[in-house]
Amino acid sequence: MRLLLINPNTTQALTERLSKTARQVLPPDVELIATTAETGFPYISSRAEAQIAGAGVLETIARHQSGVDALTIAAFGDPGLLAARELFDLPVTGMTEAAMLSACMLGQRFAFVTFTPNLAPWYDEQVRQAQLTARYAGVFTPDVPLGAIDRIDADLRAPLIAQCGRAVAAGADVVILSGAPLAGMAATLRDEVPAVLLDPVQTAVLQAVTLARLCPKGASAGSFRRPPEKPSTGLSDALRRQIARS
Amino acid sequence: MRLLLINPNTTQALTERLSKTARQVLPPDVELIATTAETGFPYISSRAEAQIAGAGVLETIARHQSGVDALTIAAFGDPGLLAARELFDLPVTGMTEAAMLSACMLGQRFAFVTFTPNLAPWYDEQVRQAQLTARYAGVFTPDVPLGAIDRIDADLRAPLIAQCGRAVAAGADVVILSGAPLAGMAATLRDEVPAVLLDPVQTAVLQAVTLARLCPKGASAGSFRRPPEKPSTGLSDALRRQIARS
Amino acid sequence: MRLLLINPNTTQALTERLSKTARQVLPPDVELIATTAETGFPYISSRAEAQIAGAGVLETIARHQSGVDALTIAAFGDPGLLAARELFDLPVTGMTEAAMLSACMLGQRFAFVTFTPNLAPWYDEQVRQAQLTARYAGVFTPDVPLGAIDRIDADLRAPLIAQCGRAVAAGADVVILSGAPLAGMAATLRDEVPAVLLDPVQTAVLQAVTLARLCPKGASAGSFRRPPEKPSTGLSDALRRQIARS
Amino acid sequence: MRLLLINPNTTQALTERLSKTARQVLPPDVELIATTAETGFPYISSRAEAQIAGAGVLETIARHQSGVDALTIAAFGDPGLLAARELFDLPVTGMTEAAMLSACMLGQRFAFVTFTPNLAPWYDEQVRQAQLTARYAGVFTPDVPLGAIDRIDADLRAPLIAQCGRAVAAGADVVILSGAPLAGMAATLRDEVPAVLLDPVQTAVLQAVTLARLCPKGASAGSFRRPPEKPSTGLSDALRRQIARS
Amino acid sequence: MRLLLINPNTTQALTERLSKTARQVLPPDVELIATTAETGFPYISSRAEAQIAGAGVLETIARHQSGVDALTIAAFGDPGLLAARELFDLPVTGMTEAAMLSACMLGQRFAFVTFTPNLAPWYDEQVRQAQLTARYAGVFTPDVPLGAIDRIDADLRAPLIAQCGRAVAAGADVVILSGAPLAGMAATLRDEVPAVLLDPVQTAVLQAVTLARLCPKGASAGSFRRPPEKPSTGLSDALRRQIARS
Amino acid sequence: MRLLLINPNTTQALTERLSKTARQVLPPDVELIATTAETGFPYISSRAEAQIAGAGVLETIARHQSGVDALTIAAFGDPGLLAARELFDLPVTGMTEAAMLSACMLGQRFAFVTFTPNLAPWYDEQVRQAQLTARYAGVFTPDVPLGAIDRIDADLRAPLIAQCGRAVAAGADVVILSGAPLAGMAATLRDEVPAVLLDPVQTAVLQAVTLARLCPKGASAGSFRRPPEKPSTGLSDALRRQIARS
Repeated sequence: MRLLLINPNTTQALTERLSKTARQVLPPDVELIATTAETGFPYISSRAEAQIAGAGVLETIARHQSGVDALTIAAFGDPGLLAARELFDLPVTGMTEAAMLSACMLGQRFAFVTFTPNLAPWYDEQVRQAQLTARYAGVFTPDVPLGAIDRIDADLRAPLIAQCGRAVAAGADVVILSGAPLAGMAATLRDEVPAVLLDPVQTAVLQAVTLARLCPKGASAGSFRRPPEKPSTGLSDALRRQIARS
Repeated sequence: MRLLLINPNTTQALTERLSKTARQVLPPDVELIATTAETGFPYISSRAEAQIAGAGVLETIARHQSGVDALTIAAFGDPGLLAARELFDLPVTGMTEAAMLSACMLGQRFAFVTFTPNLAPWYDEQVRQAQLTARYAGVFTPDVPLGAIDRIDADLRAPLIAQCGRAVAAGADVVILSGAPLAGMAATLRDEVPAVLLDPVQTAVLQAVTLARLCPKGASAGSFRRPPEKPSTGLSDALRRQIARS
Repeated sequence: MRLLLINPNTTQALTERLSKTARQVLPPDVELIATTAETGFPYISSRAEAQIAGAGVLETIARHQSGVDALTIAAFGDPGLLAARELFDLPVTGMTEAAMLSACMLGQRFAFVTFTPNLAPWYDEQVRQAQLTARYAGVFTPDVPLGAIDRIDADLRAPLIAQCGRAVAAGADVVILSGAPLAGMAATLRDEVPAVLLDPVQTAVLQAVTLARLCPKGASAGSFRRPPEKPSTGLSDALRRQIARS
Repeated sequence: MRLLLINPNTTQALTERLSKTARQVLPPDVELIATTAETGFPYISSRAEAQIAGAGVLETIARHQSGVDALTIAAFGDPGLLAARELFDLPVTGMTEAAMLSACMLGQRFAFVTFTPNLAPWYDEQVRQAQLTARYAGVFTPDVPLGAIDRIDADLRAPLIAQCGRAVAAGADVVILSGAPLAGMAATLRDEVPAVLLDPVQTAVLQAVTLARLCPKGASAGSFRRPPEKPSTGLSDALRRQIARS
Repeated sequence: MRLLLINPNTTQALTERLSKTARQVLPPDVELIATTAETGFPYISSRAEAQIAGAGVLETIARHQSGVDALTIAAFGDPGLLAARELFDLPVTGMTEAAMLSACMLGQRFAFVTFTPNLAPWYDEQVRQAQLTARYAGVFTPDVPLGAIDRIDADLRAPLIAQCGRAVAAGADVVILSGAPLAGMAATLRDEVPAVLLDPVQTAVLQAVTLARLCPKGASAGSFRRPPEKPSTGLSDALRRQIARS
Repeated sequence: MRLLLINPNTTQALTERLSKTARQVLPPDVELIATTAETGFPYISSRAEAQIAGAGVLETIARHQSGVDALTIAAFGDPGLLAARELFDLPVTGMTEAAMLSACMLGQRFAFVTFTPNLAPWYDEQVRQAQLTARYAGVFTPDVPLGAIDRIDADLRAPLIAQCGRAVAAGADVVILSGAPLAGMAATLRDEVPAVLLDPVQTAVLQAVTLARLCPKGASAGSFRRPPEKPSTGLSDALRRQIARS
């Protein structure tokens, strides 16, 4: 099985971090390939950035879908996720959604712990869009500047453990360590947190594998049936043809 | 007051229809200017198209915001609405959201009546995103091909009246006649429908005027405070500078 | 356009404060007329008082509706609002409802800040009745005695700013400065609060103007269709005839 | 124990019907006394009528509370219920609320069956106000003119049985036979309906008895603590003194 | 009327405490009989224990139902409640459910105060299962070891009063003093708590009496109609015959 | 990886059908072992049966957990699921819950299609317990007697296809073909249903595999932390020791 991990951010180092973390849990028969966005933002963290990056994700899939069995959109907030499900004949998962739904099999309520309060309202909206508010214990963030990617683990360890404690006090059974820059940290914090800790990129790729086994065409019906063919202006040729069904 | 109406579709005739309908209710001291999308789709009707067109809306605002007091995004489904609120120092309204919230002052429950079942799931999602499900009686659609724009009023009159009747039977006090191509029809159907009929573009421009009088900077705090400045790749110069705060 | 502002309290000074604040945002073609309740309470602040004052509001409208294009009930908690919508052929707005719905175009979540904890449960109920709980961040109150009306601005400034800060910390993007005695204060606090501040009487009159432009008969269908004619005992002649449809 | 049943309608024959039905289930140590409204409407069936009649209920309680251990407001829709709880040192029940809550111990979902569609939106609102929507299967009504009270049982029997069948098909485990004019009919229909049938006035008086045994002062805290004393204009002397705490 | 109180715990002293507390409010014509579980746990406090004890409750009812008019399951969390309703021709109440529903006639929001945080998540689940989250202000617990039953009143008095204060601050109008070991304490704390205090076993037995007067067969329709007869393996003879309808 | 599939019913032929269906999607490195209940019911279909069978599931796990990496409870309705999660150091999935959560990655709304209306209320309750009502389009059932297991595919094919059509009309994007006796049928109906069809036992075993890769100890924190050790009476030795932590 070939799984495409799409990093909607333009930061190549993040792609590497995400891929490495994903490979730790993938079974040997799954080949992971990864792409980095060529346009957009170094790290998406607002609605406007997600609006633009989500359009970019559709372009990326249009160009790379050939020979792929499943897709993971690897930015927290899942830019372009529902649109991609609607347009392409593949199972697609997103880090936020996959982590929330998996958490519901590991506890009654989940929380997000991430690195900056700027992301909190955006995370709240993902929960509402998935209609999982009743299982949600909140988002908890230190206010720590995100420094160099190779310093994250050292700089954020203590503040993240503290926030996990707040999440547990607020009723979370499961903590989702959120945001692509934190990929891989769950394993190193697990022993110090009295909650189930989920790594979203690991969760998202395993869920993509599960969907590919259950339902190889992905979402394809009802609200997600392919839209009627349509002409367009200003898109890449690959995406234009996908939408035109030509 | 100058109000910018943005048609996120590439069809110029729709822009004219929307502008004409909006002007029927605007007070004389409001100058309406209108734009038509240069890239994208003739008529947006799927999540993927909204993802792409919403990014285009941000580009349009970046280029046209100077001298403008308020904005209306004039495609049902409100592509780019929340992103625009977050990014620009202006009140912004969308046809769907403005109509839903106004309907709540005219009845207990509202429904959408539109021209094709393709749009139904997308409309349902707008209601959920606004968290107004408890006030929602559903979306009701004939399955009638949307012909030439100058034939819409004649072709759709009877089917739309029939669907309004279904909406009322389902508990709607207010019917929102939805979709840019139906702009202006509410006035002609009003006498034959036992519900309050709302025209969304009229509602959206009047609400933009109201917001401009109440709160000239629009949404600007909390979840909608301006995001930190950020570099980007691949955007127009106007939007790049907006996001870079330069 | 003639807009009737009804103060359901018996305090004339409040009517003046409300009218003056409303006029600051009304367009010049709107004539505002205002009434003060002749029976009831100096300042309504409980369910029992609202039950009685709401019946009084219906009496007031029955006597003053002639020549009026729209109505605003200007006490927080909107006494008699739904009953008035059902009975009279006019758009009717209330301060609480109009502010909540307008806030939904200016942020994800709104909060009330008011002057006394006595009002908090009553405000919570308005949110539930409107089914907007999912957009609500709570009510925040100092416990400050409400002194003379001409001292309110000075006495309450600091305590209200502090409560606005609490509201923002609880996730409010928009703060509704609630209670008729605070009319006009939003403008003076705006620069010191990191949230969009709404003045409910300004919001309610502008929404009444918007409804009058969109839908001159107001709520009139479905759940708000006029009730069948009915005899009654003990009402004023004007209200008796309205209910008897005679 | 003395239980006061308040009929907020001005129809004396209804009071007799309600009292007779209530007495069928009351234990012998409970003395039932009943009042009929002197002002208001022969039969309340709209929000405006409930607003006015609810104020009348407060007047009635103020005059008759002496020597009473518990109260039941015996009009469907519970006019004045929350206001009465807030103002008086007695347990107070209403027919709608008591029936809904009791139904939750007899099934997963309840429905209302009543005699006219005019009442349906009003009943829906009671469910929402009590926040029991998740347990609610709807309101089902024939459209049968309500004739003379002594003909109700004969005229409505077949139409009501038919509507109970619809309620069951919609998922109701319990059917509440709603509206004061139907008091006493549940017993005669029980054998022909595949649902638990509840008679609301019987339910409301038994719940009043239960509350009087559990909590003789009724609701008296938090949101229902007695409001601060307040002067008033235009009320009866009894109610004025109650509100003035004099 | 004969009312069977079932203690699903194996602790005889709890049965006595529960019975004594129940008898304080029962009318003289109600005979209370009580049983103590023979298998299971001294005090149930987890989902696994409730799963097992709930099966035991069904066994107990099968053996003791003869001559009984109503049942109360007297462990907080109501083990086996819905299953018992489905299987037996009797009204059945549980301490948690009866207290929550009764609280809704005494305030807008209720809270649980109990003796140990271990029970908190389990209580939260009862609220969700009953779909009463919107009326719920939370569960509040000291972390005090539950010592000998005859020391509870002395040891827990001060910590419970403190927790009641927290519940009130969180918006509770009614506090349910939860957990069988606290039976009877509400009366002794009432004067020191600014909330309505409910004793769940008293509430549950009074509600069982009410249901027996209203609806002697209990839940018996729709979702709670008796299941089709079925063979079984490994049950007691009494329960096997009940399920086999033989 | 060793995965234990527990059939809580006493019908051995069902265990074989479930195992065969599960093996079709399991990767080769997963060894599936299966057990059949020794006590209980041939086919669980009521709350009372689930209460008893769920206690049996705990007994089965206590005896068979050694050397197992993950568990699936293979009866629709998930008897004992939450209790098992709380008690054992293993990931545990259930057919209903796993199918609902997986469906949320394949569509906006899911429905159940099953073989008899008797099961409908029970299925509704599973949705509410998981708090997924907002994603739920209902349960749809023919009323067809469930004959011999080897005739199911032939007898039920046409009726099930018809019900899938109703589910789609009600807004389902995903249909969960529910009930252990239907295991394996999704594959044979897929081409004739315009929805994504999920087979719950396949979904549940793949989700168990995913959880075992992500989180080998399963739910273990917060609400699902292991309960304190406790003595018991009347359990098997294996379960008694598990609960006594001895």
